[in-house]
Amino acid sequence: MYIDKFFNPQSVAIIGATEDPQNITSTIIQNLFQMGFKGSVVPVNPHHDTVFGLKCYPSLSDIKEQIDLSVIAISSSHVIEILDQHIESGIKNCIIISGGFAEIGDKGEAIEENIKRISRENGIRIIGPNCLGVLDNYSDFSTFFLPWSKVKRPSKGYLSILSQSGSYSISMLDMLSLEGIGVSKFVSYGNRADVGESELIEYLTDDESTKVIGIYMESVDDGRRFITASSRCSRDKHMVVLKVGREDSGVDAARSHTGAIAGKYEVYKAAFKKSGIVEVDNLEEFIDACKVLSMQKPARGNRILVLTNGGGFGVAVSDLCCAKDLDVASTPSQIKESLSNHFPEFFILNNPIDLTGSSGDEDFGTVLQTAFVDNDYFDAAIVIPLMPPQTMTERVVDIISQSADESGKPVVVCTISGEYTKKTKEQFELKGIPVFPSPARAVKAMSILVDRGKAHGI
Amino acid sequence: MYIDKFFNPQSVAIIGATEDPQNITSTIIQNLFQMGFKGSVVPVNPHHDTVFGLKCYPSLSDIKEQIDLSVIAISSSHVIEILDQHIESGIKNCIIISGGFAEIGDKGEAIEENIKRISRENGIRIIGPNCLGVLDNYSDFSTFFLPWSKVKRPSKGYLSILSQSGSYSISMLDMLSLEGIGVSKFVSYGNRADVGESELIEYLTDDESTKVIGIYMESVDDGRRFITASSRCSRDKHMVVLKVGREDSGVDAARSHTGAIAGKYEVYKAAFKKSGIVEVDNLEEFIDACKVLSMQKPARGNRILVLTNGGGFGVAVSDLCCAKDLDVASTPSQIKESLSNHFPEFFILNNPIDLTGSSGDEDFGTVLQTAFVDNDYFDAAIVIPLMPPQTMTERVVDIISQSADESGKPVVVCTISGEYTKKTKEQFELKGIPVFPSPARAVKAMSILVDRGKAHGI
Repeated sequence: MYIDKFFNPQSVAIIGATEDPQNITSTIIQNLFQMGFKGSVVPVNPHHDTVFGLKCYPSLSDIKEQIDLSVIAISSSHVIEILDQHIESGIKNCIIISGGFAEIGDKGEAIEENIKRISRENGIRIIGPNCLGVLDNYSDFSTFFLPWSKVKRPSKGYLSILSQSGSYSISMLDMLSLEGIGVSKFVSYGNRADVGESELIEYLTDDESTKVIGIYMESVDDGRRFITASSRCSRDKHMVVLKVGREDSGVDAARSHTGAIAGKYEVYKAAFKKSGIVEVDNLEEFIDACKVLSMQKPARGNRILVLTNGGGFGVAVSDLCCAKDLDVASTPSQIKESLSNHFPEFFILNNPIDLTGSSGDEDFGTVLQTAFVDNDYFDAAIVIPLMPPQTMTERVVDIISQSADESGKPVVVCTISGEYTKKTKEQFELKGIPVFPSPARAVKAMSILVDRGKAHGI
Repeated sequence: MYIDKFFNPQSVAIIGATEDPQNITSTIIQNLFQMGFKGSVVPVNPHHDTVFGLKCYPSLSDIKEQIDLSVIAISSSHVIEILDQHIESGIKNCIIISGGFAEIGDKGEAIEENIKRISRENGIRIIGPNCLGVLDNYSDFSTFFLPWSKVKRPSKGYLSILSQSGSYSISMLDMLSLEGIGVSKFVSYGNRADVGESELIEYLTDDESTKVIGIYMESVDDGRRFITASSRCSRDKHMVVLKVGREDSGVDAARSHTGAIAGKYEVYKAAFKKSGIVEVDNLEEFIDACKVLSMQKPARGNRILVLTNGGGFGVAVSDLCCAKDLDVASTPSQIKESLSNHFPEFFILNNPIDLTGSSGDEDFGTVLQTAFVDNDYFDAAIVIPLMPPQTMTERVVDIISQSADESGKPVVVCTISGEYTKKTKEQFELKGIPVFPSPARAVKAMSILVDRGKAHGI
């Protein structure tokens, strides 16, 4: 299948390759070295004999070996002649990173129309133009032209991202790395002259290393195909979308950005719902949704245990749960009685359970074992361990994550991002428990797990 | 004035003082040492002769020197007898940190009623019980019983915080430190047997080191007094409130937490509006509002310049501005013409101005000078510099903050929180430019500056 060549090429021609650090081909080639890409990298540039020690060819037609994919990052005015060389050389996959097309108005639009025609008439599949291209964490291949010293490469995982915006792609990469969310594939497709999100969703539906798909969308390529592809995909995988260009000024800005016609937002909203896609409102929610769906399973109901040693957070989380139709159901009396044998009378055992600042690590374990592991009453838990009291240590990470494992039910943690709590956040996430930096974000994440549970009828 | 003694005592008696690291008096005393508190610290405990090298007294009546303030952190069942000693010793200020009062039901409520009676009949002013007490960054005094190794102490500044919740207080401290927001005074007052937010607002209205007041509220102490005090205070200072206990389950949880009767949320909402208080919806917004009001001035209108090198962020910010009634007004044609002489044709000069990934530091300076410093058309600017392109360096911090200074108009920056961008965030904030980690939070912060500008009629 042609799409696969974008992610796992055996040989890549880099058009206009040079060692000049200001030129993005230089960063792309060095990134590939650094990532340990196993395929062959073939520089093409009439002005050089070698580039970074690799033999450099004057043109595509001079290359003897089979080229799976070309990467074009030269001025838009020369792109058509390079594409013509593809026809002669039989190269069927191409990523055009350069900008200067539909997004700049009439002149660029004419070139982009030409690109579309060449693609259509010759079966050349194109990602871009005006994009970053592709990152595949399994084949260690990338055309992202930002140095890995300035953007952190996320670890290997099961989340794939499709994005119309290059700048969002960069920021998402950084955030995913920081949040410890593992990534499979990442596609920034910009002006989308040919390959768009619908076809990529079809491809990712059958991709074993993708379990969650996140989409940043300004406009859809083909509404009907998108709904069909997403409806099928979301049966087994989770899909998250962030739609921008909703309001008038955003719609105008999207047109100047990737030449996208954003259209009526209400139509999009209905389509996402129909297709089983989780729609989010902003970048944090997008990352949070991808994170919780990557790390946890859907909840089989909406009865939420809220457990904390900080009463104020119990209040806030209860408020927010109520607003999101999550049921902070009262602790059943037999559980309360059983717990009261272990605790002083000033611990609050009614849900939210507030162990107060006088509790310690083990108390969290006692509650979780009795109320959550040994009892089926609660469907999921939001735990807010505040670390500052002297009685709280990093052992609470093992205690909470072990209970979560034993329960077989979803658990999310909320800790507030001070210097000290950062360490426990990383430890929780290494054990697969997602941590969110505020009550609002933890509750929103939990509501997504509950909604997905309903959708999957578990 | 008696309230002042809570913040700037010359002598503090610590009831039940011990060197036992599990006892919170031990942390309080060591924190005071570490902060360099200039007043005298007087341990009171019949079981010790000295505590951390300080002479320890068997009871309050044995102390010869005048005591400005006592700190009580012993079991709730002994608090009344200690308060009785205050009457004899003439001590007029007391912070009761201990829990075990109205928040645990009938038995504790009876003790708390007794505390209120003693306070009222003898003119003893009380903060607490069930609280952290006080932090004053100017007198270097604190009763917060979390070790500064586990919670970071914020720097000295002009924000004062009033909080009913102890756990929120801790988390806010951590977040304020992390965000580089300077703090003046911090009061966690818990069950509020005596001193509450209304009286503290009256006090802070005349406090020169307080310019912004943030309030975390479960319930109000005295509605009428609160509105009068806030209306007066908000004329010259900014006030921000986060109200929790809005929904039914949150109201219940608040009652178990600090014994607060939260009441109808709609009434609160109207009161905040009437009093000129900025109401926010969650913890992030609270911190963001405090931050932007501490660092920037109100805007004199709603015409916002949006400047970025990442088109996707321009689209998102435009969307969000529109939803918040901020006007991303088109760049006037004479400014566009003037800019177009400096830039290649694929730079998008219509607001949002998208310099694309091909721009560098200086280009941000060129736009800001022409469109923002030399021209009065725009009232404020949101700048989103993406750092990953090779052409972007840390010099952009000086360029943007210098233009902001010269313009005399508010500027906020949005950068996404990767490892690399963290450094520029700190640099921006050292220069007084607040940085927000997402378009939504940057736009919300700007909308607060615009609203405050309207309220102050500038």
